[in-house]
Amino acid sequence: MSNQLPPAETGAEDVCCTPLASEPLSGDQAAELAHKFKAIADPVRLRLLSMIASHDGGEVCVCELTPRFALTGPTISHHLRVLREAGLITGERRGTWIYYRSHPAELARLSGVLVPELAMAVTA
Amino acid sequence: MSNQLPPAETGAEDVCCTPLASEPLSGDQAAELAHKFKAIADPVRLRLLSMIASHDGGEVCVCELTPRFALTGPTISHHLRVLREAGLITGERRGTWIYYRSHPAELARLSGVLVPELAMAVTA
Repeated sequence: MSNQLPPAETGAEDVCCTPLASEPLSGDQAAELAHKFKAIADPVRLRLLSMIASHDGGEVCVCELTPRFALTGPTISHHLRVLREAGLITGERRGTWIYYRSHPAELARLSGVLVPELAMAVTA
Repeated sequence: MSNQLPPAETGAEDVCCTPLASEPLSGDQAAELAHKFKAIADPVRLRLLSMIASHDGGEVCVCELTPRFALTGPTISHHLRVLREAGLITGERRGTWIYYRSHPAELARLSGVLVPELAMAVTA
């Protein structure tokens, strides 16, 4: 049995990568993207995501994350679950702890949605 | 007297452009970014932003936006104000109507925050 936590319903395949600046979003696309942006629109979750994404080796134990905040373990776990359910991080249980990694493809997708068309033309 | 609506307090100069994947955000950086991501973490505001950013000529009259939604004028105005206060769009009153433009530099800043380090290395 794998220790990988069950994958969250990211709905990634439904999210259009089209930049906002290229064409109006459909209602479904906007709802899906709003769900993902809500996951990162929180100071604690942004800090957690940056700690995970920038960690040496690309992986970090929850036991290293919790002491960085003046918050309880369950509160940190809640925020990590929101990030995981949005498909922005993955978690794997090994022994006592869960180890988290960011999901670069999902970050790249959200980044691409916000790219202004001008910037796209410059880097194309 | 200019018809340009007063600039919102974007706090853009305080937002670090450092990608999440390069180093952990400070508390202040995370709070500032969370405020901006909250502004776009709504389906109506994402649709409005995409309609404005993708419009021919880069500008769109509020009179063209409101009929695209099953929402009242005041509700649309509220959502536009949230986007304006986050520094993502600007508005200029000309006669009866307000005309909106997106703010590409601010979109680029948020896009840059989410870029995974791998993608940065590839395009550098």
